[in-house]
Amino acid sequence: MSQIWIENGLFITMDDAAPSFKGHMVVTNDRISYIGTEAPVGLSEAVEKIDGSKLAFMPGLINTHGHAAMSLLRGYSDDQNLQVWLEQKMWPMEGKYVDQDTRAGSGLAIVEMLRSGTTAFVDMYDRMDQVAQMTELSGIRGVLTRGVIGLCPEDVQEAKLAEAIAFARDWNGKADGRITTMISPHAPYTCPPAYIERFVQAAHDHNLPLHTHMSETIAEVEQNVRDYGVRPVEHLDRLGFFSRPALVAHAVHLNTEEIELLAAKGVAVSHNPVSNLKLASGIARVPEMLSAGVTVSLGTDSVASNNNLDLFEEIRFSALLHKGISGDPTAIPAWEALKLGTIYGAKSIWQENDLGSLQVGKKADFIAIDIEQPHFYPQTDMISHLVYAGSGRDVKHVWIDGRQVLRNGECTFLDEEKVRYEAQASFDRLLNA
Amino acid sequence: MSQIWIENGLFITMDDAAPSFKGHMVVTNDRISYIGTEAPVGLSEAVEKIDGSKLAFMPGLINTHGHAAMSLLRGYSDDQNLQVWLEQKMWPMEGKYVDQDTRAGSGLAIVEMLRSGTTAFVDMYDRMDQVAQMTELSGIRGVLTRGVIGLCPEDVQEAKLAEAIAFARDWNGKADGRITTMISPHAPYTCPPAYIERFVQAAHDHNLPLHTHMSETIAEVEQNVRDYGVRPVEHLDRLGFFSRPALVAHAVHLNTEEIELLAAKGVAVSHNPVSNLKLASGIARVPEMLSAGVTVSLGTDSVASNNNLDLFEEIRFSALLHKGISGDPTAIPAWEALKLGTIYGAKSIWQENDLGSLQVGKKADFIAIDIEQPHFYPQTDMISHLVYAGSGRDVKHVWIDGRQVLRNGECTFLDEEKVRYEAQASFDRLLNA
Repeated sequence: MSQIWIENGLFITMDDAAPSFKGHMVVTNDRISYIGTEAPVGLSEAVEKIDGSKLAFMPGLINTHGHAAMSLLRGYSDDQNLQVWLEQKMWPMEGKYVDQDTRAGSGLAIVEMLRSGTTAFVDMYDRMDQVAQMTELSGIRGVLTRGVIGLCPEDVQEAKLAEAIAFARDWNGKADGRITTMISPHAPYTCPPAYIERFVQAAHDHNLPLHTHMSETIAEVEQNVRDYGVRPVEHLDRLGFFSRPALVAHAVHLNTEEIELLAAKGVAVSHNPVSNLKLASGIARVPEMLSAGVTVSLGTDSVASNNNLDLFEEIRFSALLHKGISGDPTAIPAWEALKLGTIYGAKSIWQENDLGSLQVGKKADFIAIDIEQPHFYPQTDMISHLVYAGSGRDVKHVWIDGRQVLRNGECTFLDEEKVRYEAQASFDRLLNA
Repeated sequence: MSQIWIENGLFITMDDAAPSFKGHMVVTNDRISYIGTEAPVGLSEAVEKIDGSKLAFMPGLINTHGHAAMSLLRGYSDDQNLQVWLEQKMWPMEGKYVDQDTRAGSGLAIVEMLRSGTTAFVDMYDRMDQVAQMTELSGIRGVLTRGVIGLCPEDVQEAKLAEAIAFARDWNGKADGRITTMISPHAPYTCPPAYIERFVQAAHDHNLPLHTHMSETIAEVEQNVRDYGVRPVEHLDRLGFFSRPALVAHAVHLNTEEIELLAAKGVAVSHNPVSNLKLASGIARVPEMLSAGVTVSLGTDSVASNNNLDLFEEIRFSALLHKGISGDPTAIPAWEALKLGTIYGAKSIWQENDLGSLQVGKKADFIAIDIEQPHFYPQTDMISHLVYAGSGRDVKHVWIDGRQVLRNGECTFLDEEKVRYEAQASFDRLLNA
């Protein structure tokens, strides 16, 4: 039995019953066994004590949409029209990827995520075995899925679907349960309806959730109406998509009926505010979704359209952006914004019983933040400070499943220098290939 | 003579003729005496060599609107209606300030600014002697001004104006020229027209520029029309405000004629995107202002409405926000966003001949960024990386007037622990006073 006792820390629990307090937390093996204001009793003699007096502790952040391997393409194409960005820049480079590139890009992404306090991430890409291996190695928690573009001949469609199912079956529950999987047609505009239905069937057959991109741009919504006579939400609903647990990314352009349908069907939405701004896609109606009861969480999307993986930034943008747009300074208060990045993230990946708050019985996925810095002074409302002044750079330590995966800002299971070197080498090769 | 040679650094110059290159820079006393790709020759034997190989160097950031002393009120009131925030929270606390509080708040702000790469800041508040003393002590560059609210009896108006002029005269050019001053009626809605005219006259008499808040909220614009029959820009123009060099903060709600007038009169605008979002004031028409030829720079406003002083955040918000709002992904590209925080900032404080770019003859106000971090990989377009992935936390060293004011993330002329302690003590006293 391994046991950790965090002494005299400031805990931001994400539990409405006790949002924050000065106190103690005990981790036994991979789970929280005690948290409270009083010192714990009856601990193992071998307990590892950690002085929490200059740190704030909170649940690890959960990034619910991204493409880790694309980290190699950071800054490769900015400030471009979407079609130029995608067709002339992203796709040609992605087309040159080999396994090592996916591995190098995923490694770079995971290092960046761990250093900035993300303990679980959703990833949709191809060559997912590589991503899964890096997930296993690094200690991070991953919800992984092979994203399939279906604009191809039937035999290729067949092979891709089989690959997606095989990946999902092979890796679900691996790495001591840190890896779970989903099934993902890339988007309604890149997969014919009949093909999407086969993913839905596969999700039923293998008891897996579904993930897809949805209603990211106006153009895509309009095309859906032209091609199928309905907007994307109704289209996916007709295809049975929401008969399974489903997480949709973006959902920028929704009308009120669509928001109500998503709420009624229990569909989770990954809000990607920075990516949606950078690609000029627009701003999702998050306050309306939350009011309607939709589970909304936060995703970075890939760094090719962000260009970083610091989820504190998504939290901050969520808290600020919707105030400015709505004209209501009370829209998405700090506590709600922090929930988007934690407990609502846990709900979005169907792990709210294990993740997203510091409560007894939950998995010990948590982060320690160095609060002895000027931007956290005066030390008053630390929830506000984390949302409006904090950053992933303030994260000092990270634990996942009770194991320390980041110590003093450095990854414990990955060689960061090697990861940076390999990312640079892969990029240089892709550029000249 | 003191001389510094930065060897093998990556320089982001903010000079269109040579935006970025690997090379060398020499600082002689307080100015840049050489910058280029070749190693310099004929240096003093006592030259201090700095290995720049793992760093990016750029001009220090310029924060063109803020209220440093309000750093004590960080997180004291968030997610509130503007009137509640101002009348029930901010004003009562500010009313309790004594000199030591202004000093403590300013110290906290200056530490935060230096650590995040800001080398010059505009500050409008009262008890400005305290702010000026902290500016002198810390090594930062300040453009300081006593902001005057004129909703008071005539004798009080008289005394405040006299105080504002005395401060501006006493401190202009002090601290080896690091301190310059302005004259500031707080805003058109807090100063009667005749009173504003007296500030304009004083600015003429003492050869000083003018600074004010303008058109931050729709309510304020509507009130101006009700009270004076015209919108704020025309109102200030009629009062002669733009007959002096002028910097206006916010300028969120402008029509096209107003933008044209600001351009024609050479008025500089401090864009405060985060504060404008947080207080739900709206989003300034920055792309239109830039197209019209208005000088636009960036301000944080105080941390009571931000809640931090990291100007990299304002740079990032500027680059992202206007893309999302306009639907144009090419709006405010990275290079332009970086200019908002540097060379346009220098222009906004009438010091573009001395500040804002790394060029021979300019003041040696520059910062070094640690680029050996995952979010700066692959090391490709560092201008993009700084804007879309960088942060004030990445700043390692800062020089102002050729003097190192931040070394390895720590202030050299201020005791940071003392500054944090005094800020906390002041806040605790204010809360219970």
